[in-house]
Amino acid sequence: MGEFELIQRYFVRKQPSSSSVLLGIGDDAALLQVPDGESLVVSVDTLVSGVHFLSDAPPERIAQRALGAAVSDLAAMGARPLWYTLALTLPDVNEAWLDAFASALAQRSAELGIVLIGGDTTRGPLSVSLTVQGSVNHSMALMRSGAKVSDMIAVTGTLGDSHAGLESLLHPQKAPLDSLQWLRERFYQPEPRLLLAQAMAPYLNSAIDISDGLLADLGHIMQASQCGAEVDVDKLPYSDALLHFSQDEQQRLDWALTGGEDFELCVTFSKENESVLHSLAKQQQVPFTVIGRVIAAPTLCLLNQGEPLQHRYTQQGYDHFQRA
Amino acid sequence: MGEFELIQRYFVRKQPSSSSVLLGIGDDAALLQVPDGESLVVSVDTLVSGVHFLSDAPPERIAQRALGAAVSDLAAMGARPLWYTLALTLPDVNEAWLDAFASALAQRSAELGIVLIGGDTTRGPLSVSLTVQGSVNHSMALMRSGAKVSDMIAVTGTLGDSHAGLESLLHPQKAPLDSLQWLRERFYQPEPRLLLAQAMAPYLNSAIDISDGLLADLGHIMQASQCGAEVDVDKLPYSDALLHFSQDEQQRLDWALTGGEDFELCVTFSKENESVLHSLAKQQQVPFTVIGRVIAAPTLCLLNQGEPLQHRYTQQGYDHFQRA
Repeated sequence: MGEFELIQRYFVRKQPSSSSVLLGIGDDAALLQVPDGESLVVSVDTLVSGVHFLSDAPPERIAQRALGAAVSDLAAMGARPLWYTLALTLPDVNEAWLDAFASALAQRSAELGIVLIGGDTTRGPLSVSLTVQGSVNHSMALMRSGAKVSDMIAVTGTLGDSHAGLESLLHPQKAPLDSLQWLRERFYQPEPRLLLAQAMAPYLNSAIDISDGLLADLGHIMQASQCGAEVDVDKLPYSDALLHFSQDEQQRLDWALTGGEDFELCVTFSKENESVLHSLAKQQQVPFTVIGRVIAAPTLCLLNQGEPLQHRYTQQGYDHFQRA
Repeated sequence: MGEFELIQRYFVRKQPSSSSVLLGIGDDAALLQVPDGESLVVSVDTLVSGVHFLSDAPPERIAQRALGAAVSDLAAMGARPLWYTLALTLPDVNEAWLDAFASALAQRSAELGIVLIGGDTTRGPLSVSLTVQGSVNHSMALMRSGAKVSDMIAVTGTLGDSHAGLESLLHPQKAPLDSLQWLRERFYQPEPRLLLAQAMAPYLNSAIDISDGLLADLGHIMQASQCGAEVDVDKLPYSDALLHFSQDEQQRLDWALTGGEDFELCVTFSKENESVLHSLAKQQQVPFTVIGRVIAAPTLCLLNQGEPLQHRYTQQGYDHFQRA
């Protein structure tokens, strides 16, 4: 089966129609209409087998994870998803694999409201690269650079779940089955906070999605906004499933601060907007937890019950060389 | 060196500014402004080491080839280039390699008028995936599906050069040095026919860029337009360099029809537009050669001096299984 036939057979027929797509897959390029008055938002994400997912991961899971992770970058800008391109590199044409991958991708695309508009398949070691596009009113775009001194810092959802899910896949674990399943879903199927980010955008000064880990991603905000941060580690939100999964407080803290790939939002905002933000999160039934504040000094301080935490973290995340 | 530092160090600083880029590399996503009244054009192209380029290819050449090939899809739509994202997978961080790759990419980007707006670097076997974006007035967009019965078929430039250039790299060849160098440049540095396509667009019914080979790409037009074609193989345009390089007429024909990656345009148009198209090509000093006509029967006929050619080609390109 040639490349052309492969794309036609597995990917084209599964696409829904969209009024913004004037011409979809099948020509030299797609032809698209950005909504009137909106700016375009573009991000690229690559997942490589053995690096970003286990080499024996089911194709459905690779599709779900790749698309969720990529679309999360649109959420972090306060944007609405529109379209994406897929660059798929495969070691060989395995029809069962492709069918499962394409079906899961199509289903997840429909759930996230994003349409595949171009693809390139090549032969080589398995990897998936997605360039996702969305739109946003320019004045509402959420950036990393807008944090202001004395802003409050908050996160959506709970932290450390995705890393716990991965741990449970890598090593046999004793934990209730429903906790394990929930944590694995958090790892396999990231849920971009699209609607919440769009609703909150007018009240936020800065935002990022937590892909590298809270410390690293808050570090990106600090760097872009030229400021520092204090984080109250005793305020970090944990899921019940994580509390069941790990009774080791230090381990949970490690995963929450440096585990990464929870794809929750970390945001900063003026104190006066706190109550409206809590209301918006409550409406959407998403946990929203204030965890600290922006400071002028360009450092990241961790506090426990108001006291400086003796710790071994660096702003870049966990430092293997400093471990005791 | 982490991923963040790597992108900053090698790619960000080399980017020119552009009024269409509201926010470039460095946030969760780029923020962009499509020109008023224009539609967006998007295409993705992946090059894998050992498949699309020789595994020991110089980094400058990989950059030039990847960008030229990708931008050629914008040319084939009659679009103006705007932006692109880069997904770069590298086996390791080799600073000399990265510096050379990024410098060549930046230089070629400037020449082609396209700006890098996002990147993702991952560790793995070397591959380069580019999603290129441009804009076009919707009514001027060139598609594969517009060919009409009795349209003339023409190609820009000369055919078979890129394949000859590759042959000269793979096998020692006897040919004048300047011919070899010219053919290798045709292989290494595709020149998308951007300006010519934009100028010709109002006078064309369909267009495609020749990436898979003339027969295969004309086949794509036929399939999309539900028609057939007659090609006069005695009219196919060859460069002086190719004529010096290969005295074997059959070999030249093979390369012209199936070699691919010349990234010239194959277009169809009404007879009444022929003279204005020749004038436009002449203004831009690009060869423009009528090589056949669109017919109703859904077949591709090759003619030599008006007589059917006994041949071993299929519409998909060269068929290895039918070779004598």
